[in-house]
Amino acid sequence: MFRSLLNFSLSLLLTGSISAQSMPNAGQTLLGFSAENIAAQKALEKKFDASLKRENLREWLKRMSARPHHVGSPHGKDNAEFMLALFKSWGYDAQIEQFDVLFPTPKTRVLEMLAPEKFTARIAEPELKEDATSNQQSEQLPVYNAYSADGDVTAPLVYVNYGVPADYEELEKRGVEVKGKIVIARYGGSWRGIKSKVAAEHGAVGCLIYSDPRNDGYFQGDVYPKGAYRNENGAQRGSVVDMPTFPGDPLTPNVGATKNAKRLDRKDATTLTKIPVMPISYADALPLLRTLEGAVVPESWRGALPITYHFGGTERTKVHLKLEFNWDIKPIYNVIAKMKGGERPDEWIIRGNHHDAWVNGASDPVSGQVALLEEARAVSELVKSGWKPKRTIIYCAWDGEEPGLLGSTEWVETHAAELKEKAAVYINSDSNGRGFLGVGGSHTLEKFVNEVAGDVADPQTKISVGQRWRANELINGSPNAKRDAKERGDLRIDALGSGSDYTPFLQHLGIASLNVGYGGESGGGSYHSVYDSYDHYIRFGDPNFDYGIALAQTAGRMTLRLANADVLPFEFTNFADTIGIYIKEIMTLADTMREDTKAMNRMIADGTLKAVQDPTQIFIVPKPKSEVPFLNFAPLHNALATLQESAKNYQTAAKDKSSPSAQKQLDAILMKTERALTSQNGLTRRDWFKHQIYAPGFYTGYGVKTLPSVREAIEQRDWKEAGEQIEIVAKTIANFAAEIDKATRLL
Amino acid sequence: MFRSLLNFSLSLLLTGSISAQSMPNAGQTLLGFSAENIAAQKALEKKFDASLKRENLREWLKRMSARPHHVGSPHGKDNAEFMLALFKSWGYDAQIEQFDVLFPTPKTRVLEMLAPEKFTARIAEPELKEDATSNQQSEQLPVYNAYSADGDVTAPLVYVNYGVPADYEELEKRGVEVKGKIVIARYGGSWRGIKSKVAAEHGAVGCLIYSDPRNDGYFQGDVYPKGAYRNENGAQRGSVVDMPTFPGDPLTPNVGATKNAKRLDRKDATTLTKIPVMPISYADALPLLRTLEGAVVPESWRGALPITYHFGGTERTKVHLKLEFNWDIKPIYNVIAKMKGGERPDEWIIRGNHHDAWVNGASDPVSGQVALLEEARAVSELVKSGWKPKRTIIYCAWDGEEPGLLGSTEWVETHAAELKEKAAVYINSDSNGRGFLGVGGSHTLEKFVNEVAGDVADPQTKISVGQRWRANELINGSPNAKRDAKERGDLRIDALGSGSDYTPFLQHLGIASLNVGYGGESGGGSYHSVYDSYDHYIRFGDPNFDYGIALAQTAGRMTLRLANADVLPFEFTNFADTIGIYIKEIMTLADTMREDTKAMNRMIADGTLKAVQDPTQIFIVPKPKSEVPFLNFAPLHNALATLQESAKNYQTAAKDKSSPSAQKQLDAILMKTERALTSQNGLTRRDWFKHQIYAPGFYTGYGVKTLPSVREAIEQRDWKEAGEQIEIVAKTIANFAAEIDKATRLL
Repeated sequence: MFRSLLNFSLSLLLTGSISAQSMPNAGQTLLGFSAENIAAQKALEKKFDASLKRENLREWLKRMSARPHHVGSPHGKDNAEFMLALFKSWGYDAQIEQFDVLFPTPKTRVLEMLAPEKFTARIAEPELKEDATSNQQSEQLPVYNAYSADGDVTAPLVYVNYGVPADYEELEKRGVEVKGKIVIARYGGSWRGIKSKVAAEHGAVGCLIYSDPRNDGYFQGDVYPKGAYRNENGAQRGSVVDMPTFPGDPLTPNVGATKNAKRLDRKDATTLTKIPVMPISYADALPLLRTLEGAVVPESWRGALPITYHFGGTERTKVHLKLEFNWDIKPIYNVIAKMKGGERPDEWIIRGNHHDAWVNGASDPVSGQVALLEEARAVSELVKSGWKPKRTIIYCAWDGEEPGLLGSTEWVETHAAELKEKAAVYINSDSNGRGFLGVGGSHTLEKFVNEVAGDVADPQTKISVGQRWRANELINGSPNAKRDAKERGDLRIDALGSGSDYTPFLQHLGIASLNVGYGGESGGGSYHSVYDSYDHYIRFGDPNFDYGIALAQTAGRMTLRLANADVLPFEFTNFADTIGIYIKEIMTLADTMREDTKAMNRMIADGTLKAVQDPTQIFIVPKPKSEVPFLNFAPLHNALATLQESAKNYQTAAKDKSSPSAQKQLDAILMKTERALTSQNGLTRRDWFKHQIYAPGFYTGYGVKTLPSVREAIEQRDWKEAGEQIEIVAKTIANFAAEIDKATRLL
Repeated sequence: MFRSLLNFSLSLLLTGSISAQSMPNAGQTLLGFSAENIAAQKALEKKFDASLKRENLREWLKRMSARPHHVGSPHGKDNAEFMLALFKSWGYDAQIEQFDVLFPTPKTRVLEMLAPEKFTARIAEPELKEDATSNQQSEQLPVYNAYSADGDVTAPLVYVNYGVPADYEELEKRGVEVKGKIVIARYGGSWRGIKSKVAAEHGAVGCLIYSDPRNDGYFQGDVYPKGAYRNENGAQRGSVVDMPTFPGDPLTPNVGATKNAKRLDRKDATTLTKIPVMPISYADALPLLRTLEGAVVPESWRGALPITYHFGGTERTKVHLKLEFNWDIKPIYNVIAKMKGGERPDEWIIRGNHHDAWVNGASDPVSGQVALLEEARAVSELVKSGWKPKRTIIYCAWDGEEPGLLGSTEWVETHAAELKEKAAVYINSDSNGRGFLGVGGSHTLEKFVNEVAGDVADPQTKISVGQRWRANELINGSPNAKRDAKERGDLRIDALGSGSDYTPFLQHLGIASLNVGYGGESGGGSYHSVYDSYDHYIRFGDPNFDYGIALAQTAGRMTLRLANADVLPFEFTNFADTIGIYIKEIMTLADTMREDTKAMNRMIADGTLKAVQDPTQIFIVPKPKSEVPFLNFAPLHNALATLQESAKNYQTAAKDKSSPSAQKQLDAILMKTERALTSQNGLTRRDWFKHQIYAPGFYTGYGVKTLPSVREAIEQRDWKEAGEQIEIVAKTIANFAAEIDKATRLL
């Protein structure tokens, strides 16, 4: 998992009283299924559940995480071949599909403080006797950030909090210069790649990213090996490629990184960082941070180290950072296993999880991968017993996810034309743990997800995972989530930003996608560390593989229903409802920015802002910002009204029986509806991203931006662009509604 | 100061643009003054300002904080005599008024950990070479909590966060037993005396209170002597007497502790703690806290020590606490200095600050005391130049504030009858520092305070202190405070809870009171420590005594205007507005409790609450609470309507010229209006507190509870009592309105 589970966001299942209520889908209706086929499907799922074996998960997880298996490693290739053999043994048409990608590994890593005292950072995670695989130093990738620039820099050190744009505004107000300095940012608040990108934009010459114990260490819980959390030497490897511009091999944007693909020269690759970047542990960060002088940072910037946090940036603290990498092209191995559909073989249900890790990766990604394998095995058992899916099922084990979704992106780019024709839905999983179901994805599948969540039992509480999800929203949700959980029939699924392999499917090609996993009760700080090991996972992850089985049941049900339904189970009223919320959000965003700008400009002009500052501290009054005009949101409202109407008409019509002969014809339209949400020109300044509803944020990384071209234009205060994008997005939504109408006409 | 400035709450001055606006009271109107007398008053104030000398403040502060001057100390008596001499030299009719009070000092203090390892707490603040008075160990009161019980207990240790009732609810849910244990609470979240009271209520046998660096230490800023904040050995002395029941000498409730007063037997004294209590530093707390086992505490409970915080309470950590005290009766010395009024000598304007400290007390209380002295000196200069106040001015320097407002309370109780007749207004100050004006008090004086704040220039920014106060509200205030600062002509003053010497005046006798001071930019952690020294104060407090002069100008203006006005400058529309807010608050409180109770009871009944818990952790589902009935708030609304009408009528009438002959008669009514806000029966279960609008919270300590008898009945879920108290408070408000009407009839 490219993305940290630390901020595992749970969003939203079914109505009312938990104990009083029976499982909601016990036989009445099932989205996409004719009444006469429901019982057979339910029986099939029961059989499927019964054949799932937790011992397989344990055995495979131990085997696959037994050695480091990053891109280019012997054990990585071995794992791919192991899975290939399994798929073949289960009767899948399976193969390994290789790509050749740029994957830098460290040659030189030096971090030392030259002043006010000498200190050399350890940048290593030591062996622990409680962790059997932590001693495999010769095979481990050291602590580093992939796609960092080479560099040899010596400069004063500045603390920049999370290193997001707002933090640099604060530094400017406090008169702290970043240009020519090395910044130290803490993990959290954004995806790591944003930190180095924004640091470079502000003229920093180097970037350190450390795990503060406030976010990822003893503040959260007991540290490893006593507890699950990151210990003082734990560090978080990870990619800093500019994924929000495009993921995949930096040298082959838009095309597959096949052997003979045309490659960019490395100097022309736009997604590589401009400055050297390295992650460090809090044991390595503490000696540096405690020497910083200057003003004390704002309260929200302070971590849990036993020091007073200062901005630094003065000549007192001098740091030397030297990084050199082997810029090699390495092979990656995707495992692709097909089970051809009987009735509609050219409609594909794709189910994927990555298999590469930063080190041993027991949780990330093997915990998800082994659930996928067991799901695939149980599906093959059904086939052996005589059942055959209507549609084709394709299981994928991606390589190279960690450096930047390499395996999935290159595969999607290579097969783009065929996928656009045949892919109905992509279902992704990644790390998995104990706790609550979390689902993100296309809101055309929200109702479908709710049905599935109502039919899987939570292993710990025996209520459905949907009911437990709802309970969590009711108690721990935001005020809006609480209200929805109380009043709305369906729980809301998250919108997808990025951070795992759904991105090329959803955001590049417009294939309806879901990302599924459990978590929230298997906290800890092993993410991207040598301590993400079998030993850690069976103590703190999912000791009995209960949630591995739950994931196989959940994603397996999704796969089986999607593969078997009479008509693809898309539904559009929930999508329309969601779009309505996004439109409200961006209007509120503009209104709030308008009021805040006015208020701040007034306080700058009349001296209020200056008047409250402590005159003994530096404070540079910011320049007033341009006023926020009123934007014409009417095109979006008109498009939304059309969409609502179309969605309702389809819902009403779908209640009538569709003639069996028309189902295939209907599928052909439905499977491509999500494509209508893309635009060939893509997003402004990053045209690889085609989806007009969901994208990772340009300045948040994983964090999703919905209606991204409008929202980001507003956030960047480009009013002209915002107005243009409103028109484009409105047209996209109207086109989408027209596709729904086409489907309705077939009913 | 009995109360910590750490949570210095600034609440609210005048309209619009700071730079564009001139000082608002430049000559137009002045509350209480006829138009023809305004210019003379302004000229007088100018003369007053001109005679203030910062060198006096520096010299006196250095002199008074040169040695420890707690109750019973030689230097405390010496300071009283020094001030007496000063007042006399300035022409005041001054005397020392002695009381004899119970004041325990430590004989034995032992805190040791017996298991899992041996550790003996230092409980001492070491000498620092940067702090000249920190070496006066032989005269210093050691680190202790006054009025702790004697005790010798050995028990497991439990961490209870702030030790307020809600924390014990959490402990109960987590299955952590407190009975028979020693609790360790961190400072903050409530007044310290609440921590030991609530601990004892839950069966704890001992209580430690430590300064967590999150609230009071390196998390906040650099520690002493590098910076102003509490270092690892700094500890906070302080009283744990049950002040919300009654302040003053525990042996003489309601009567003055004169030589021959009838005293309670110590065993019958209800305000003494039931268990031994001691404050400790974070260096002493860390070894204890890091041994605690059990579950990890909720995030909001975690401090800034470099450990994972656990509940503890198991047999693993055993602590031995032994405390013995000398339970002596000690003399205290109030200095009372009168300047008799010319025209209305039986109307008293009383101005006080305490002079006793826990150790050297440069900030607390000497910084406020020296501003009062300089104010008194400047007033005497005016008198020497031929001016005479209309009303009598009484300057008071209280002793024994720190242990429990002893000096002021005993004086007020002794002179209660005369004070009820003659006291018009009491103005209090205490610690003072650099920053923003903060004022709390009777809202009948809110308009008056706003006028004064508009006429004092902020020494750092040159705008008025009112304008700076408003700027601070606009930028740092709560959403309501921001809106008020933008839209309301007058800034809101705080309601007074307790924590300094206004309490007996305001809450026992119903004398309109104000508490005035500057702060917010002189942060630090010297409160109740040996490091509250001259050296600390001139580096981090108010190095140039700018804000000492500003306090003298502010409180001096208040005193001079109150003493000199044609009619006492009370105003009632702001008071009515405030009461309206309080009524809304308690209605919202009941509504919120009703909804929360319903929602929680439902989640308990239907299993939602249990469903979201991690089954590997202990969680005891709480019992459902009784439903919250709808209360009849109509009596309060009716009383409010009457009050609004009366306030408006007085405001309209007051604009007409009052005949000079009627002014004295009018004063006689006005000065007693606040008395009408008291009830002779006092508050339920604590009848010393007579005021029906303002009281310290029974379970918050200093934190104010407005409309306390109603609010606390609701909080304690006593619906019958809430209904009864609504009637009583409504009558009180109606009686108050009737007093205003009497005044109006004289106009």
